[in-house]
Amino acid sequence: MTEYVEEERSNALLKSELRVKDRVAIIGSGNWASALSIIIGNNAKKYACFEDTIKMWVYEEMIGDRKLSEIINTEHENVKYLSGFRLPENVVAVPDIVDVVSDATCLVFCIPHQFLPKVLSQIKHHVVPGTYAISCIKGVDHDENGKLRLITGMIYDELNIDCSILCGANVANQIAAGEFAEATLGYRVRDHAEKLQVLFNTPDFCVTLVNDPVGVEFCGSLKNVIALGAGFVDALGYGSNTKAALIRIGLMEMKKFAKMFYKGVKDNTFFQSAGVADLITTCWGGRNVRCAEAFVRTKKPWKQLEEEMLNGQKLQGTTTCKEVYDMLINSQMDAEFPLMVMIYNIAFRGFDAKCILEGCRAHNGTLMSPYAMMKE
Amino acid sequence: MTEYVEEERSNALLKSELRVKDRVAIIGSGNWASALSIIIGNNAKKYACFEDTIKMWVYEEMIGDRKLSEIINTEHENVKYLSGFRLPENVVAVPDIVDVVSDATCLVFCIPHQFLPKVLSQIKHHVVPGTYAISCIKGVDHDENGKLRLITGMIYDELNIDCSILCGANVANQIAAGEFAEATLGYRVRDHAEKLQVLFNTPDFCVTLVNDPVGVEFCGSLKNVIALGAGFVDALGYGSNTKAALIRIGLMEMKKFAKMFYKGVKDNTFFQSAGVADLITTCWGGRNVRCAEAFVRTKKPWKQLEEEMLNGQKLQGTTTCKEVYDMLINSQMDAEFPLMVMIYNIAFRGFDAKCILEGCRAHNGTLMSPYAMMKE
Repeated sequence: MTEYVEEERSNALLKSELRVKDRVAIIGSGNWASALSIIIGNNAKKYACFEDTIKMWVYEEMIGDRKLSEIINTEHENVKYLSGFRLPENVVAVPDIVDVVSDATCLVFCIPHQFLPKVLSQIKHHVVPGTYAISCIKGVDHDENGKLRLITGMIYDELNIDCSILCGANVANQIAAGEFAEATLGYRVRDHAEKLQVLFNTPDFCVTLVNDPVGVEFCGSLKNVIALGAGFVDALGYGSNTKAALIRIGLMEMKKFAKMFYKGVKDNTFFQSAGVADLITTCWGGRNVRCAEAFVRTKKPWKQLEEEMLNGQKLQGTTTCKEVYDMLINSQMDAEFPLMVMIYNIAFRGFDAKCILEGCRAHNGTLMSPYAMMKE
Repeated sequence: MTEYVEEERSNALLKSELRVKDRVAIIGSGNWASALSIIIGNNAKKYACFEDTIKMWVYEEMIGDRKLSEIINTEHENVKYLSGFRLPENVVAVPDIVDVVSDATCLVFCIPHQFLPKVLSQIKHHVVPGTYAISCIKGVDHDENGKLRLITGMIYDELNIDCSILCGANVANQIAAGEFAEATLGYRVRDHAEKLQVLFNTPDFCVTLVNDPVGVEFCGSLKNVIALGAGFVDALGYGSNTKAALIRIGLMEMKKFAKMFYKGVKDNTFFQSAGVADLITTCWGGRNVRCAEAFVRTKKPWKQLEEEMLNGQKLQGTTTCKEVYDMLINSQMDAEFPLMVMIYNIAFRGFDAKCILEGCRAHNGTLMSPYAMMKE
């Protein structure tokens, strides 16, 4: 009997909550934001807990003689960052960021992380009370002491709202094309996570909830450092054994790093899409691998490779690599992370790329067996 | 003071043990056995706890007008199974299996698993008391009830000696070439494992000890089933998101399967080289992936593909897939393993390869959030 009453009450609560639908805003309109807007737009139409219309903040630019926002709103295609894919008509491009956030109750952040501080200061006084957020931003920032700053932490600190994170083996164009993929949603507040799962999940985009936002966020940034190592291995022409070993050792150092610097990070997170799966794809075909391979082959500086190979985009592995190295040196933990330190040494201190194997071998340790002590 | 005495005693014990050196025999001389014989031969010369001479059992065959064993013993090259690599001179090819085992105290099994029962019955009455073993055999067997039989278990049952297992991301020719790789050694008896680590470990072949022989052995066989799924995905032309998702879901089902059927299997084993790293390499370039891709593209039966593509070698993924399926059906656990069941359905029941995505999607589950219940 008690249970029945409880249920009644919870349904009533739910219905009253659902009377106020969440208004979702997407902050960003690049390749990944545009791909996600297809999913978000369609799910907002499908589920009753969201308003249909999704405002998407577009950093205005001219495409020929037309504004990008106008093109998106008339042709429903982001011709610059996701050409060839139709965006849902309920996704509305808006160039004024204050307009975008001032009536939103759910903010989806998806911009390059270096633009985040400015955006946060612009919207700070316009966020509706009770709003929650999710970061789909890849990468991390760092404070003046060289310590990594989590994106979700920056959003929380600046806006004082709960912020989850979405991360996984997600090449944007493949998602836009509707190919099957998984993603991991790291959350602090379960109720927000359940709404966000409804917003992002589709039969071909499987979103798993993990109560470990920090672990998920670290996976998303540290993988790019390991991918540099994978690029070095590719450039040297080593085979699949070596590459698999590097990826595995990299995953172990990622786990150790996250657990060492932040309490509560869980082993299981590294088995999720944001962990092992994203690391695999990133090490097999991402921009960090390609640039790192070219770095060894051509001996060109990173800046030049970025300009020549990335069409204006930034290489995140190198930035994160510096930040990780600084943290390890500052905390005198560098000896515990021989692979990540060696990736830094090759990328920034002129070490030969072949030294990458020393970063792996260091995990072999001295054989402690007494049988190893006695040699012929 | 007590500690000092303890140490004295343990050194004395060690020295007395080392007066009797282990005599290592390699049972098998195929591609993998020959690659391992390079490492084993060199380490036996280097470490005092092993006799220099390593007998290697060769299933005798004629290469032109010469015996394979004679070629190995005069030219120190296994011209048929590992051509182009020099074997250490202390590795001696012996065609008589009883001769090989009758003075050995450490047996390294490295033959195709289907030959194991016969070999075990041949050597059963010739094994020296106190001998220990290690299996480098890939694959599993099954008993009359369709239940998987572990190779280490078969060796223990038949010979009544402790048997460890070695497994990892180890393409034989890359190991023979000295490329960096890792391997996992699953053990029951620590003392044997420490000797075996000394026998196998080199700076470029990092052997990690794990007290979970069953987990290691399951990794080594179940990966081949998942690799079939990876081949289906390749044949369909899906991108890296999908392949990474399949590999990750496959790893989760491998872990669940091993833990369900055998107690004591550890999560951490799946982070080792035998787990995630071997699965990655196997899904990116092994024979199971290649044949599974051809199976979808050409619609030829498995037997024909084996003959055309594998030069007489057997495809292990298909055999293991049947065994796994039988076990799941017999124990009514098939609903818990949608990916492995779907791989079977595609491989043996005429299901369209595209159904592989259903095996992945099934892990998505119904959204349990109340927010998902109310649709527009």
